[in-house]
Amino acid sequence: MRTTVGIIGAGPAGLLLARLLHNAGIDSVVLEARDRAYVERRQRAGILEQGSVDVLRAAGAGERMDREGLRHDGIELRFARRRHRVDFPTLTGGRSVMVYAQTEVCKDLIALQLKEGGPLLFEAEALAVEGVDGHSPRVRFRHEGSEDVLECEYVVGCDGFWGVSRKAVPAGLSRVFEYTYPFGWLGVLADVAPSHDELVYARHDRGFALLSMRPPATRHHPSKEVASLPIESFVSRLYLQVPAGTDAEEWADEEIWDELERRLETADGWTLARGPITSKSVTPMRSYVHEPMRHGRLFLAGDAAHIVPPTGAKGLNLAVGDVVTFARALTHQQETGSDDLLDAYSETCLRRVWQAERFSYEMTTLLHRAPDATPFDDRMQLARLERLTTSRAAETDLADGYTGFPLE
Amino acid sequence: MRTTVGIIGAGPAGLLLARLLHNAGIDSVVLEARDRAYVERRQRAGILEQGSVDVLRAAGAGERMDREGLRHDGIELRFARRRHRVDFPTLTGGRSVMVYAQTEVCKDLIALQLKEGGPLLFEAEALAVEGVDGHSPRVRFRHEGSEDVLECEYVVGCDGFWGVSRKAVPAGLSRVFEYTYPFGWLGVLADVAPSHDELVYARHDRGFALLSMRPPATRHHPSKEVASLPIESFVSRLYLQVPAGTDAEEWADEEIWDELERRLETADGWTLARGPITSKSVTPMRSYVHEPMRHGRLFLAGDAAHIVPPTGAKGLNLAVGDVVTFARALTHQQETGSDDLLDAYSETCLRRVWQAERFSYEMTTLLHRAPDATPFDDRMQLARLERLTTSRAAETDLADGYTGFPLE
Repeated sequence: MRTTVGIIGAGPAGLLLARLLHNAGIDSVVLEARDRAYVERRQRAGILEQGSVDVLRAAGAGERMDREGLRHDGIELRFARRRHRVDFPTLTGGRSVMVYAQTEVCKDLIALQLKEGGPLLFEAEALAVEGVDGHSPRVRFRHEGSEDVLECEYVVGCDGFWGVSRKAVPAGLSRVFEYTYPFGWLGVLADVAPSHDELVYARHDRGFALLSMRPPATRHHPSKEVASLPIESFVSRLYLQVPAGTDAEEWADEEIWDELERRLETADGWTLARGPITSKSVTPMRSYVHEPMRHGRLFLAGDAAHIVPPTGAKGLNLAVGDVVTFARALTHQQETGSDDLLDAYSETCLRRVWQAERFSYEMTTLLHRAPDATPFDDRMQLARLERLTTSRAAETDLADGYTGFPLE
Repeated sequence: MRTTVGIIGAGPAGLLLARLLHNAGIDSVVLEARDRAYVERRQRAGILEQGSVDVLRAAGAGERMDREGLRHDGIELRFARRRHRVDFPTLTGGRSVMVYAQTEVCKDLIALQLKEGGPLLFEAEALAVEGVDGHSPRVRFRHEGSEDVLECEYVVGCDGFWGVSRKAVPAGLSRVFEYTYPFGWLGVLADVAPSHDELVYARHDRGFALLSMRPPATRHHPSKEVASLPIESFVSRLYLQVPAGTDAEEWADEEIWDELERRLETADGWTLARGPITSKSVTPMRSYVHEPMRHGRLFLAGDAAHIVPPTGAKGLNLAVGDVVTFARALTHQQETGSDDLLDAYSETCLRRVWQAERFSYEMTTLLHRAPDATPFDDRMQLARLERLTTSRAAETDLADGYTGFPLE
């Protein structure tokens, strides 16, 4: 098998890249280890930055997002039983975010790819990436019981943190930066309308809590304008900070609701609506960056190169940024013959990556209580939150980071 | 002995308070354990916020400051051999800071007090503060070999971190918040003009460095306008981050210059001028807050209630804020009979104190390298610095904090 760009992984990075390349008239093949049903069920982030929304629309993949996604113009911070809303458009000159689950983005991109795009092979497990130092890199993979080889001009590793792509960078040239947080998120989906119409980020002495939401499971709505679905039709997505290594089954449903209620409590009598919990899982939290993001003809994108903790929902958006950067660089190369942008890929991406890592780290440490937090640490958090509520500059810095760093 | 306000300590807090009360027609007595020469030699911070400058001028204590102080409209951040200037007036709507050493502020206030103010007793060591729960608090003190008692209506403890005032708050009502940094500052005075005309804050893999300055030792200049003294007449004040517990004598002068040169190095060939080092000492670094700042008729001000690390130079400015708040509250009480502002003293001060603690902590952790810093931590610092150089909002937040939080 032969193509211009071999893409490993059909998560949002790989799928969007295939779409961008298709639109630019560049061939690609996508190899995905799992089957389609698995990929379409994977629950991940659900917040698209303004820049990601723009990219998906421009790529022709925004139709259902615009119909079923929910535009959010702000978030609410809660601490010390107080509520403070951060208004994005006012602070950022009109930017906002879109609540639309990553899994829905993947479904949309898979449907487009199968309809119009190049080959997308499910249950095609990449085994190794070879020859990236030369001009003819190859991906060895297993598909339908036998081994095969994908010969390409470029390989883009979009195969996530556990994928094989990153291993093709010689250890001596790799540099890894990481931090593992001493807590995780217990996340639940509950079949009840969200108790607030925007996301609520709560800092509490007992730990962080997040109230979020997902579009209703029903897939077929008549075509409507953005955010025309009533918030009442959404379901609740809720998170609790729990110690690292917690088993979700340790938590009974009623305990989860009780704890959410405590951490989300306000002085003004806001109430949390309960409903049947339909899913329950624990996400570990890690910050991770692999440098460089390019070695020879291998380019790493998304989780294959970097992980952020979920606070602030940067993961998917970083993946979008990476593949947009690669697609632009390769298009430039094909049009002009110049490798300049491809050569700058790692540096260009890493500037944005490190800002997103910083933002995610700061949001996380602002809102989570470390197990060894001292009374001084608690006061520092409260002073940082207080600052956000009293300084337009500090609040703008947050809103700007939340709605996204520019795609270069 | 009897007075309205017994003030313990003739540092900047106690001296300024005596001046503010004198101007409001309220009697006070200042007790200072050390002799005048000692007080006038104590080297401390040297940056006055805009608000502190305004207060000193309004109190009639700004004459020499305006003649010999140096107005600074910015600072320089250095990292990764890069230089970035933060312009205060542009970012904050016209605010700036004044380089004028705390020890000079004290000399000016002592001279005024002795000329026009109430009693200021040197070598008068406060032994205990008593009866603050009732209407007639008393300060027992030792002066000229014998014990005496100062009877007053209010006692203000301005006697620093090690003073006796704070001990008069019952332990059961005290709450202490503190953090000790695993490093300190090796500070030197050098008889050479500063190599840059504004303060330089440098983050380096080897640790933090600061280039600062002091007015010339010569005390008698003809009266001139603000900042009319040429920068060439100033002397260099320089600091290096060193491990906690370092003995200044471990560092030979040439080693200090070599290390400063390494940490302050830039890509554009800036050079550091060397000269004879005339003083050398190590300052430990601590964040500390005692709550509440008031108990009965005892009010704590300045270092008696809170300590900040020196990064960002908030210590003296917080002391100014505390005594302005007290003087206003007492004046209000004398004019209206209402205790409202006195009752709000602790809360009013603590709002500003915690913001200054936050600012100082963030400046410190932005620029110092912790002994256990990981490569990820280093990148977080660089990303925070990078953010300051690319986001107007983030830079404004810093400039706003540096030039000072509003006096309420």
